[in-house]
Formats: sequence, structure tokens, C-alpha cells
Amino acid sequence: VSVHLPKGTRDFLPEAMRARHRIISQVQAVFDRFGFEPLETPAIERIETLAGKYGDETDKLMFRIHKRGADAQPGECDLALRYDLTVPLARVLAMNPDLPLPFKRWQIQPVWRAERPQRGRFREFWQCDVDIAGSRSSAADAECVAVADAALRAIGFHEYTIRINDRRILSDLARSAGAQSLEQELSVLIAIDKLDKVGVNAVQAEISGRGFDPNGLAPLWAALASQVEGEQALEALSPALSESGREGVATLKEVIRTAIAMGVDPARVRVDVSLARGADYYTGPVFEVAANDPSVGSVAGGGRYDGLVERLSGRDVPAVGLSLGLERLLVLLEGAGALSGIEAAPTVLVTVFDATTLAASSEVARRLREGGIATELYVGDGKLKAQFKLAARRGHRWLAIIGPDEVAAGTVTLKNQRTWENVSVPVEQVVGIVAALDPGTGVR
Amino acid sequence: VSVHLPKGTRDFLPEAMRARHRIISQVQAVFDRFGFEPLETPAIERIETLAGKYGDETDKLMFRIHKRGADAQPGECDLALRYDLTVPLARVLAMNPDLPLPFKRWQIQPVWRAERPQRGRFREFWQCDVDIAGSRSSAADAECVAVADAALRAIGFHEYTIRINDRRILSDLARSAGAQSLEQELSVLIAIDKLDKVGVNAVQAEISGRGFDPNGLAPLWAALASQVEGEQALEALSPALSESGREGVATLKEVIRTAIAMGVDPARVRVDVSLARGADYYTGPVFEVAANDPSVGSVAGGGRYDGLVERLSGRDVPAVGLSLGLERLLVLLEGAGALSGIEAAPTVLVTVFDATTLAASSEVARRLREGGIATELYVGDGKLKAQFKLAARRGHRWLAIIGPDEVAAGTVTLKNQRTWENVSVPVEQVVGIVAALDPGTGVR
Repeated sequence: VSVHLPKGTRDFLPEAMRARHRIISQVQAVFDRFGFEPLETPAIERIETLAGKYGDETDKLMFRIHKRGADAQPGECDLALRYDLTVPLARVLAMNPDLPLPFKRWQIQPVWRAERPQRGRFREFWQCDVDIAGSRSSAADAECVAVADAALRAIGFHEYTIRINDRRILSDLARSAGAQSLEQELSVLIAIDKLDKVGVNAVQAEISGRGFDPNGLAPLWAALASQVEGEQALEALSPALSESGREGVATLKEVIRTAIAMGVDPARVRVDVSLARGADYYTGPVFEVAANDPSVGSVAGGGRYDGLVERLSGRDVPAVGLSLGLERLLVLLEGAGALSGIEAAPTVLVTVFDATTLAASSEVARRLREGGIATELYVGDGKLKAQFKLAARRGHRWLAIIGPDEVAAGTVTLKNQRTWENVSVPVEQVVGIVAALDPGTGVR
Repeated sequence: VSVHLPKGTRDFLPEAMRARHRIISQVQAVFDRFGFEPLETPAIERIETLAGKYGDETDKLMFRIHKRGADAQPGECDLALRYDLTVPLARVLAMNPDLPLPFKRWQIQPVWRAERPQRGRFREFWQCDVDIAGSRSSAADAECVAVADAALRAIGFHEYTIRINDRRILSDLARSAGAQSLEQELSVLIAIDKLDKVGVNAVQAEISGRGFDPNGLAPLWAALASQVEGEQALEALSPALSESGREGVATLKEVIRTAIAMGVDPARVRVDVSLARGADYYTGPVFEVAANDPSVGSVAGGGRYDGLVERLSGRDVPAVGLSLGLERLLVLLEGAGALSGIEAAPTVLVTVFDATTLAASSEVARRLREGGIATELYVGDGKLKAQFKLAARRGHRWLAIIGPDEVAAGTVTLKNQRTWENVSVPVEQVVGIVAALDPGTGVR
């Protein structure tokens, strides 16, 4: 019998599950409050839906599913596990032309990528996306930023900066450097995207090496050298921009102003005119939420992708979205001890003395559960000693002990597992007394 | 571009998602209260883990995943989508020998089966399982029954009967009919399992046809003919049983007594000495929760399977479990209108007059959201008329209208979408007034 997990996958045992549930439900509550609506799509999609949407290299990383049935040729695959949540969204938009627009949805589901497993990277991992489809307004971009900001604060993560730029600004400068097609623009942008890691000189060298003129980007180098920030940097760049770039500048200012009105702390927002973001489909504002600890890197990112839905689905729907790095955030919060307060076990363990007292113990468990108190009834084969050991190991806060004496008297002995104090209480009052002694039950 | 779903799969659009979320969270709350712990396992398992565990026919229904990489042979599959939640549980038990026993887990995740799609049956569907591993006590069996009963009541489904039997009773009678191996016993049980559908005469004929003597089951036919019910039927059968069968009778009585002490209504529990349940791995008590409407059939089922975990994982762990028919229950509840009260849209739609008032509208949205009121800010490209249309279509209960007059006065015009009444309120008081006018917000 094989008792291994597939490479790059994980079981989530109860403790991990409780932490994930808490974080995910906090994030969902924020999404709901912002008026985003839940969507789920199947894990499997048709190969035709997925293939060719991400590039050849990525197609190789898909988990492809062999066709079933007697007529399937060896190696014939008709389905694959979804690779992200964006292509499925585009498919949903194409298949549901009656959905009222703008359609704001959140989606938290696993995706599968056969990448080489490494520390903190998995082949099955959860994506957590918000997208707004069907609006060209900068209010939609701002709302994606604001909802991500509110979600991060809701889960207790506060050490971050929101970097923001508009793809049209860098594209404009790339054209001044000699780029003549979208492909060439992207080639320059990919070089600029490495600025944080390799510095200005190396980026300029790479741009030259790719056959473009780094002097065309002089306003960018000047802005970076003078360390002007935010809207000042935009002002410094504006004279060098064409109409498209100036539209980018104007949009960016609107997005920031609106996001702040929506509740984003202005101190967290930083215009970063060198922010390119890798993906080739962005057409307007782009965002990246960076942890202030540089070793952590990005915890969320996104942008506007007005052409992508049409390319994926044939239906022209402008869209903007943002993806929270849920897996990374869970690791960060765990490392910061933020997930340690989560209740590890039901509040009470009701012990079972022997078969003759089982019904009495069961009734006490029933009363506690109906009173809203999470209760474990011991249903194992062990004696009292084994039950006490289990309670110590699992961390129940109370033992409810019912032996023959208690059955005769109609009482329960409640034992506080921290103080080891005992109190004998009538069965009818057990819920009220546990709730009174232990405010952590949340029962009033 | 392919815009089809794979056969037998579904998208869950927002309305369906909200109904599923509500039902699933109600069920989870009951599981938690009973001390069951959450577990999730990967969608993909190694072929070796799954193959040969369910029989040849079932192996053909698995979605097998083609091996990645240049060295994969055409048709070479190394992984498959999980087929149920029981084999993954057995793998988890085998891989985690330190888990304290009894281990009580709940698991609600999709499974994949390439069955011919038909009405109400899907190739991707959710299973909802509770299992208790590591206990031979009848308290564990009773707790599975009690938690299923409590979960059904929590989701508002009340029209059901819990049928219960012990596999050892029928096995005993099957031996009297001439069965000499487990396989032959199962052959007789499969015939008996059809009793509800085909009647006693047809079952007897099938038993004869399979080469066994239906007269060996005379006590069963007598019990069925006399229509004695419950424990009386057990008494009637007992004289005909060997020690194993009598153990079954004793266990069954204990399970019923304990389940009732745990809160199950005695009127719902019915001993059914003809209940066999199909699966070949049951070794003790078996249960089936049947909707009182016979056209609906079973909504939950399970039983004790003491040998299965060892067969699947090599680790000998007795276990009992129960599966709620979540998909069927959702259809039933929807049909009964029980899911119609679920909020279809955020409470308030904040309108946007034009670009000059966007910041003011955004601030009102921020106040409402921070006050805990689910709020849609209009982020589309349409004029006020389009916004009103959207609100009518989506069903927001309130419009918060902010035009230039309101901006100048520092007010919001709140419009009740049901009564069409307007009220002008200061921006600072918008949360309190919406909460006071609309108790449905839940804000106090």
C-alpha cells in the first residue's frame, strides 16, 4: 500500500485547517462587505479552454487528464486541472452573457501547477482573487486596491506598502527607447522589472543588450536618481510622455485619490514609476503589495487587463483584478504567532466511566452541545486514565466527569484543566455554569 | 475559444454559492460542536494509493493524470483525482501514527467520478463525511448517527427516518441459508438489499437463483411478515442467531440507546433487519437516513468498517463513519424554498453621479463598510439611470445617492427600494440610520 502524498501536495490536519479557516473567513467577510460575490468553478477544465492561454512553457506545467473509455488513444488527454482562476472567470463571463455588469467576484480555490517543488511552493495551492469585470472606470481599479488593503488589515497583517503604477507610462518610455511593438515594449519592461534586484546600471545594460536605447528612458533614470516620490515623480515624467502615457498619469492620480477615499491609508500608497509587473496582459494601472520586510517580498498583486477576457473567451469585457498571496500570508502570520490563539480542541471533554454510565455521559454531552458549547464525548475504548491523558494532550479546557456517584446524585464533576479545581454541579445547570466559568465559550 | 464546461461539472454562480455556503457552514458548526475536527487532503493522489481499492469497474471511472516531463511514456499516468474521502483518510491515518485516537474528523471536499452524467448526478461533486477512527465502542457508532441527525435538523431538513441494522445479523442468517464465505454472504446481502424495490418474493427467488436456500432466512421473512418493528424484531430473530449475530443485536441496542441519550428523537429511529447497505466493507452497525418522501430516497448513510483502514493503509484502526448526501440535500432544500431567504446582494448600493463626486461616494461606501454594512459602490461606466436599473435587478435594499447637492450639503439621500421613500441624512450618521431603518443589517 502506498502511503505517500503526491510531490508538492499537503494534507491539512486539524490545527492547520483551523488556522486556514479563520484567515479565509476573515478575508471572505471583507470581500462580501465590499460587495464582491462568491464564485466557484470546477477543478477540471477542457484542454481547449486552458491550452495556449499562458504560453508553451506553462502548458507543460499543466496536470492533464487522460481520456476515459475504450476509444481513448494512449496519451490522449481531454481535460486538465485549472492553472489559475482568471481563465475560468473569462469562461464564466463568456458562458453567462446575462450576468449584470460590472460583475465583481471573489474566488478562493486551489490551482495546480507541476512546478519543481521548493520551500514554500506547492503543486496544489490556493489562489484568492478579486476581479471586477465590465468597467473601465478608475473606481474599479481603486476598489481592488481598497479591498485588498482592508483584507490584509482584517487578517492582522499591517506591515506593507502598496506600490502602484500605470503600464502606459513605462510603455510610452519604452517607445522612446526604440520599442516599436507590444512585444518590444514588454522586452524593455521585463528589464526594468529587475530594478529592485540588480540596480539601475545593470538594467540599463540589459536594455542596451536587448537592442534598445536606455537614453530614451532618461526621464525615468532622472526620477529614480532624484528620489522624488509619488505624484511628484509623475509630474517629473509627464513632459516626456505622449498622450497615452499622460492618460496613465491621470488615471493613476484618480485611482490613488479614490482608494484613499475608500479607506486606504495614504501613508501606505507609493507611486513607483519603475513597477512593471511581469504578466504581458496588463493594459493600465498595476499594483503590488510589498511586505515592509524586504526578505518577504510581494503578498498581493494585480492590475487592469482590458484585452484579456476577449482573448480568452471572445467576449470583450474590460477587467481589473487582484490576487492575494494567501499561502505566503498564512506562512507569515504563522511565523508571527498570529495563528496560535486558535482553539485547538473542543471546550469540554465528557468522560465515560463504563458502559453503565454511557447514557448519562451522553446526555451531559447533548446538553452542552445544545447549549452551544463545543464538546467532545469520549467514544474510545480506554479507561479514565487514558481519557485524562487524551484531554491533556488535546487541550480541552474542562473535563466533565460522570461516574456512578455522579449518576446517582444527578450531578457532574467539572474539572478546570488549568487550575485542577473541581466543582460538582447539577446536570441541569451544566451549560450555565461552564458558560459562566469560561467566558471563552462565547455562550451568554 | 472553447466555452464549454467539462461534462458533468458545474460553475457555482453567486446565488448558488451563497446557498451552498450557508448550508455547509451550518453543517460545519454542528460537526465542530460535536468535537469532530476538520481535515482536508489534496485533490490528487498517487495511482498506487487509489487503484485496486474499489474494484475494477470503479478504477475505470477514475480521472487519471498523465505523467509530466520528457520521460513520460504516452498513456503513462502516475496520479488520479480522489474518488472518495475514505481512502485519503486511511492514508492520513497511516502517515500520521502520532495522531491521538480516537480521531474524529469531518471533511467536506469534492470528489471526481467519470460516471455517465444524469439528472442530479455529477462528475465533480461534494462529499461530506464524518468518521471516528480508533474506537470499537458502540458510543462511536451512536455519535455518527447523532451528529448526522443534528446536522440535518440544523439545515432545516426534518422529514426523515434513521434506519439502522447490524451487518452481523444478516451475515448470520446468510450462513443459515448456505453462504460459506464472506463473498457468499455478500451475495445474499445484495439480494436482500433490493427488498424495498422488488418485494419479498423476488428477493427469495434471487437468493435461490444464486444457489442459496431462502428457507435458511425463515426468521427474517417471519419478522417481515409479522411487521414487528424495532427491538421486538430483534427479539424475534435472536433465537435463530449464532454468537456473532447476537453480538450484533446487543450492539444495535446499545447504539440506539446511546444515540437517543445524545439527542436523537426515538421516533425517528427504526431498526430495519433487512437493511444491508451495498458496500462490502461494513463489519458492524450500518445506518441509512431515508427521507420520508419515498421518491427522494436516502440522504445519508454509513456504518462500521473495522477492517478497511488496515486493508487500505496497513495500519489496523477500527473505524465508523457516515456520509451526508450534501448535493441531494441542497436540491431538496432548494425545492422546498428553504434557500430563498438568502441575501442576494449587498444591503446598500452607493451611486456615483460623476467623476467630481466619486470621492464623496467612496467615502460613504467606506463608512458603511467599516460599520459592518455590506455595500456595493457603483464602479461601472454607466449613468445614474443604469445604476438604478442595476439596483433593481440585483436587489439592493437601499440606494445611497450622492449628487453635487448632497456633496455641497454633506448629506446622503437614502432611498428605500421597497417603499421608494427618500430620506436625507448627514454623512456622519449614515451607518446608524441605515442600521436603525433596516434591522436586517444585523448592525446594532
